[in-house]
Amino acid sequence: MNTSDGADRLEAFRAYRDRMNERILEEKDHLGIKRFFNLDSAAYRDGALDGGTKELLGLVASMVLRCNDCIDYHLQQCIEQGFSDEELEDAMNVALVVGGSIVIPHLRHAVETIDLLREEKEKASE
Amino acid sequence: MNTSDGADRLEAFRAYRDRMNERILEEKDHLGIKRFFNLDSAAYRDGALDGGTKELLGLVASMVLRCNDCIDYHLQQCIEQGFSDEELEDAMNVALVVGGSIVIPHLRHAVETIDLLREEKEKASE
Amino acid sequence: MNTSDGADRLEAFRAYRDRMNERILEEKDHLGIKRFFNLDSAAYRDGALDGGTKELLGLVASMVLRCNDCIDYHLQQCIEQGFSDEELEDAMNVALVVGGSIVIPHLRHAVETIDLLREEKEKASE
Amino acid sequence: MNTSDGADRLEAFRAYRDRMNERILEEKDHLGIKRFFNLDSAAYRDGALDGGTKELLGLVASMVLRCNDCIDYHLQQCIEQGFSDEELEDAMNVALVVGGSIVIPHLRHAVETIDLLREEKEKASE
Amino acid sequence: MNTSDGADRLEAFRAYRDRMNERILEEKDHLGIKRFFNLDSAAYRDGALDGGTKELLGLVASMVLRCNDCIDYHLQQCIEQGFSDEELEDAMNVALVVGGSIVIPHLRHAVETIDLLREEKEKASE
Amino acid sequence: MNTSDGADRLEAFRAYRDRMNERILEEKDHLGIKRFFNLDSAAYRDGALDGGTKELLGLVASMVLRCNDCIDYHLQQCIEQGFSDEELEDAMNVALVVGGSIVIPHLRHAVETIDLLREEKEKASE
Repeated sequence: MNTSDGADRLEAFRAYRDRMNERILEEKDHLGIKRFFNLDSAAYRDGALDGGTKELLGLVASMVLRCNDCIDYHLQQCIEQGFSDEELEDAMNVALVVGGSIVIPHLRHAVETIDLLREEKEKASE
Repeated sequence: MNTSDGADRLEAFRAYRDRMNERILEEKDHLGIKRFFNLDSAAYRDGALDGGTKELLGLVASMVLRCNDCIDYHLQQCIEQGFSDEELEDAMNVALVVGGSIVIPHLRHAVETIDLLREEKEKASE
Repeated sequence: MNTSDGADRLEAFRAYRDRMNERILEEKDHLGIKRFFNLDSAAYRDGALDGGTKELLGLVASMVLRCNDCIDYHLQQCIEQGFSDEELEDAMNVALVVGGSIVIPHLRHAVETIDLLREEKEKASE
Repeated sequence: MNTSDGADRLEAFRAYRDRMNERILEEKDHLGIKRFFNLDSAAYRDGALDGGTKELLGLVASMVLRCNDCIDYHLQQCIEQGFSDEELEDAMNVALVVGGSIVIPHLRHAVETIDLLREEKEKASE
Repeated sequence: MNTSDGADRLEAFRAYRDRMNERILEEKDHLGIKRFFNLDSAAYRDGALDGGTKELLGLVASMVLRCNDCIDYHLQQCIEQGFSDEELEDAMNVALVVGGSIVIPHLRHAVETIDLLREEKEKASE
Repeated sequence: MNTSDGADRLEAFRAYRDRMNERILEEKDHLGIKRFFNLDSAAYRDGALDGGTKELLGLVASMVLRCNDCIDYHLQQCIEQGFSDEELEDAMNVALVVGGSIVIPHLRHAVETIDLLREEKEKASE
């Protein structure tokens, strides 16, 4: 599989996300919006449930609500947390059954993202 | 808290669910629909991820998609799987942050259901 | 199956619908809202597609968007248009596959509504 | 129009809402959930936009997302802020056009709620 | 109208769809996901309702749930089933009325896709 | 910030929107669809609520329903109506709290669009 375009896709997403988050949080500086971003980060920290499980919950929520950017973000976190491909597929299967065939285009996107993230990791460890 | 109405609510939900599932699966007997129900059950069995984690994923998916019947069903399974109140609250917090304040009415419903399920369990073990 | 409560449910839905539609269209008399209601009715009249097919489309759209009142309304129209139980089940199966298990509570509701509507028709023809 | 059942509906909603909010905020006391509730309240306070306009925004958001409890809550706030029936109808018309006929059952609910709230206010001022 | 970019869009969609479906079904080989894909295909086969009507149901479900990839897929099937432009417009009108103005960007996409598919067919028959 | 790509994005969106609207309204000429487009335009005209407030309602509805094209269109109207950045941020904060973190990618998009629209306006007034 040729994933060179795909790799650019991940980098472009990260760059855009960083640039706009900075624009929103540093420059716009709206108190309510800033507090929401903080609350969002806090929701995935270790607590009664560990951070890994919470990222998996975030992934499935993002899939049934069908948001590719959110899926990419949570997949990145899930892979950093050490989930295997088989575990991620089990989670995505739950999302598929709950959310239906309308989730399938996002499943394709997610599987591509997983491949790209694994490839990045391999390159980084060479 | 007086939860007598609430307890009836859980029983009424279970009775209606059983009656209509029987009507759909036994009497209607549509192959596609039956296969969907089987696939749905299979998605929560132990696999690469254990059944408990999958039920938690089902709970959060149900909350962000805002379906009270689905929430009640997955809460029942989660409590049978042994999740504590604190763990369920952490999961529901992820659903609240991802799905927004529109999830709050379903959070109220879910917290009531948890109380009712704990009460049932206590009575059963008396 | 005892459907006496269910029969009341259909009557209560129709009475509430009629009362509030009258309140909205006759008394409130907001031009934009009235025109929307007219456009809504017109969308299901015979055209390039016949009215029956359009009602079936309305049913599936209502199921994947998970609106019980809309489901009940379109089921009533579909049955008046002469669709058989098997045809309705085929349509609901498409809704189930596209929309996922989150549609199941609405499938239960829909199957009960079909039973109630068939029962009404039988009584009326006695 | 006989709205006695309806009046009970508003009271039942408020009682349930208060009871469960207390259960969630006082007893459950989950930090993330409490902070979310605070953020939610803060979003509707006077700022660059006045609180009234924000409640109207909350109403339209609740209608297109189709949450009756949220609609009832924001209608109450909108009426306290002094919006006329005609202004509320204009806002609901935007929700109807953006969200489609699937919003109609919630429009019926909203119009009933407005009637009930006006009636309450009249009684209170007698 | 210059649709050369558009034609590339259809080809790119098909190539991506085929590549990722193969990756998911052949290589990933997750039993639940594979069974879901089979169930999805089966839902559109001739039954009590003919396959054509089912594709039209799939199209309207995809439009109200606002998924461009799903719209493109079902439009392709609908055109293979022989639906005329006028019939497709009637179906899309139902989707527009049920789903509201939020569907309009997807209506634009769908009309472009229909044009591209008709153009392809013409070229193929030259 | 380099927004040259972004500026092209706005122009490309407007050109595509105009081209497809003309294709739909002038050439396709489906009565129901045309009437829907008229109803859509009419919903934002001055009435009991002024057109500016209605555009703000349309913006928030578009954000919670997560439609970037709709967000871009309403932002353009809001800025023509004279809303300040701070007012738009207050409105978007309501959308964020109601709709949850799933709205964040659309918030990024919206903030970029506001920047691009302000830039266009500056250039035009030079």
